[in-house]
Amino acid sequence: MPGGVAERVLLTADGDRLEAVTAGADPPADAARLPGLVLPGLVNAHSHAFHRALRGRTESDPGDFWSWRARMYELALRLDPDRYHALARAVYAEMALAGITAVGEFHYLHHAPGGRPYAEPNAMGAALAAAADEAGLRLTLVDTCYLRGDFDVPLRGPQLRFGDADAEAWARRASDAAAELPGVRMAAGAHSVRAVPPDSMDVVAGWAAERDAPLHVHLSEQPAENEACLAATGRTPAALADEHGLLGPRTTAVHATHVTAGDVKRLGSGATAVCLCPTTERSLADGIGPAAALRDAGSPLCVGSDSHAVVDLFEEARAVELDERLATGRRGHHRPEALLRAATAGGAAALGWDAGTLAPGRLADFVAVDTAGVRLAGAGRRDLPTQVVFAATAADVTHVVVGGRPVVDDRAHVRVGDVGRALGDAIREVTAP
Amino acid sequence: MPGGVAERVLLTADGDRLEAVTAGADPPADAARLPGLVLPGLVNAHSHAFHRALRGRTESDPGDFWSWRARMYELALRLDPDRYHALARAVYAEMALAGITAVGEFHYLHHAPGGRPYAEPNAMGAALAAAADEAGLRLTLVDTCYLRGDFDVPLRGPQLRFGDADAEAWARRASDAAAELPGVRMAAGAHSVRAVPPDSMDVVAGWAAERDAPLHVHLSEQPAENEACLAATGRTPAALADEHGLLGPRTTAVHATHVTAGDVKRLGSGATAVCLCPTTERSLADGIGPAAALRDAGSPLCVGSDSHAVVDLFEEARAVELDERLATGRRGHHRPEALLRAATAGGAAALGWDAGTLAPGRLADFVAVDTAGVRLAGAGRRDLPTQVVFAATAADVTHVVVGGRPVVDDRAHVRVGDVGRALGDAIREVTAP
Repeated sequence: MPGGVAERVLLTADGDRLEAVTAGADPPADAARLPGLVLPGLVNAHSHAFHRALRGRTESDPGDFWSWRARMYELALRLDPDRYHALARAVYAEMALAGITAVGEFHYLHHAPGGRPYAEPNAMGAALAAAADEAGLRLTLVDTCYLRGDFDVPLRGPQLRFGDADAEAWARRASDAAAELPGVRMAAGAHSVRAVPPDSMDVVAGWAAERDAPLHVHLSEQPAENEACLAATGRTPAALADEHGLLGPRTTAVHATHVTAGDVKRLGSGATAVCLCPTTERSLADGIGPAAALRDAGSPLCVGSDSHAVVDLFEEARAVELDERLATGRRGHHRPEALLRAATAGGAAALGWDAGTLAPGRLADFVAVDTAGVRLAGAGRRDLPTQVVFAATAADVTHVVVGGRPVVDDRAHVRVGDVGRALGDAIREVTAP
Repeated sequence: MPGGVAERVLLTADGDRLEAVTAGADPPADAARLPGLVLPGLVNAHSHAFHRALRGRTESDPGDFWSWRARMYELALRLDPDRYHALARAVYAEMALAGITAVGEFHYLHHAPGGRPYAEPNAMGAALAAAADEAGLRLTLVDTCYLRGDFDVPLRGPQLRFGDADAEAWARRASDAAAELPGVRMAAGAHSVRAVPPDSMDVVAGWAAERDAPLHVHLSEQPAENEACLAATGRTPAALADEHGLLGPRTTAVHATHVTAGDVKRLGSGATAVCLCPTTERSLADGIGPAAALRDAGSPLCVGSDSHAVVDLFEEARAVELDERLATGRRGHHRPEALLRAATAGGAAALGWDAGTLAPGRLADFVAVDTAGVRLAGAGRRDLPTQVVFAATAADVTHVVVGGRPVVDDRAHVRVGDVGRALGDAIREVTAP
């Protein structure tokens, strides 16, 4: 609420939007009561749904980000539209149970193995759209351009599935997807400065500008990207992306782990948003990015669960602060309310949804968190209940409402039912020998 | 099991110990069925129970470890035996719900405010013993010697509660506690090289040796301890502790975050165990310790939830690996089975309990983890189910058995009931203005 957290708040919706938000109200008899702390719906600004099938399967492997990527590519080869639909539906349902009401799917698995287009060229995107619809989440489909394997290296092997013929072919297919997938918010994706040549960046940026669509790009997740970019172009990834229109207020740079001080200034002064994915950046040994410096420079922050080693936006949000504590030996880089904002309004802005605050006219997306259970009992002074972002987990979300409609009721997914079973079945399909 | 994870395992107990452990068994009709993955009970090797009342209350504060410590001292002043009993009972019950079957309480809050002894000098230790008994956990009471505020600085203010007159007085009181608290395993604690003068270290070490008791000591949690120790003695904390008998196979060094390469060799070659407390070391901005190097040098590892910002030993265990990924850019420092061992057998050894493996003759302490829920579905290949340590949370523990008796049944605490309420009530008592 404008004055902070309030008690006995009546939320009324008109269609899928909030009509009134009234504190200290006497609820009408037919009102549904949400116990605990009610927050705007959590927004997962960066997802690769299929990576969920790797959870608990790569943890005995030595190596680094790149050896993990080889495992991820093997998995990518196993997917087709039906399997992807089943897997993403279950993953999005897991997200719903965790209080996530909107997800940005960074989607580059466009074509059949070898790169052959499906009869319906957007069959994979349509599978994701159906999955999100069935799981009750808003989907921003970040249709991602992925044209080469690295600077001066063509697509190879599993990567062939990711590639359109060129940026113009990508733009045509993405425009078709926008027309074919009406419930979905379309966004443009440039996979990275490695995967999209400079001229093609201009095309992606132009497509997003023309449609006033969000634009997402992986940026400096690994030092090797910086080194390759510098060697190939004499520029940092952020500088190269900026020269070709990829940065600015409609853009979300994902990770920004290994950005230079100059990059921080560039990102911030252009109001480029930054999506941090701390559980993934820790799992994949990426490192700790300069989140506070980026914020101070002017970049709005949001968070994503990315590889889904963990699906818990409270954990992502608090990790933004906790990892900077590890890096600096100091506490208090980010206020709890700023972390909650990153996980709600920040994500909504990055994905192009009019959500993330509980105010009349905004989308009626909100969640209830159990403050009486063991994890939150005693946590959060009455004047600072936002500190629950440091104590809550996905398991503490009890109710989820999207567009005024219940999606999760008392920890149960209203439509999908047994989400664990749906996950197990879908993952078995794509991992069985 | 010796050959790894097995199916349909029948555990039979004789009194509080396992009598037989049989895989592929046909269970008798009156056997209780534990679903999911059954593991040895988790062991929390380092706890300060009262810190739980700070969860979600210091996260808006800037500062560092030392400013947090000032808040912790304010809280310490609010405790008396009754309040401490109520708080610790609820905190230990939270631990039980998280699958923890034994806890090491690093106990230095011995006396009334100002340092005046209670009529029963071990009233606070007795409160902890009763709390653990009611919560169903095994307690190792690490009765901790705390004699000065820092090198050449006397105890002041809240610290006066921690201090006995001298090391001999500490030893007499600890010996009395051992006689008065029969269900409890007694251990010796030296708070730190800051708080215990060298001559007194000899007394603490002698007390532990004489009783063959475990000995625990905080070591190099913060760079400031190293600097002060070097300035005052010309030695690192590990070297000073070693000179005065505090290291060796009966000892657990807690944290060891800022140890030098020489310290690592010293700790490892003496087989001193190291207790990592990663969620606390991250929360308090301590930093990332060299866990893999310590293990390689010869130190057995265990984990503790310490300040209880988080009570989740799966999270502690995986953080040992995940934080080293952040520090190094590489994956695979610790195998999942080693992390699980740290959270079970490693902790049991550090606390002096004959537990931590499922084998005939060992204590019948074990837990069941729900592998069908959203977090674990699909995680852990059948040949490597230990990878669930990367996916499970405290909320996935369904059943807990200690000494053959059920403590948690289908996520409910058998004796304490509503643990959230018990926590809320106890925390309100010690935090209300």
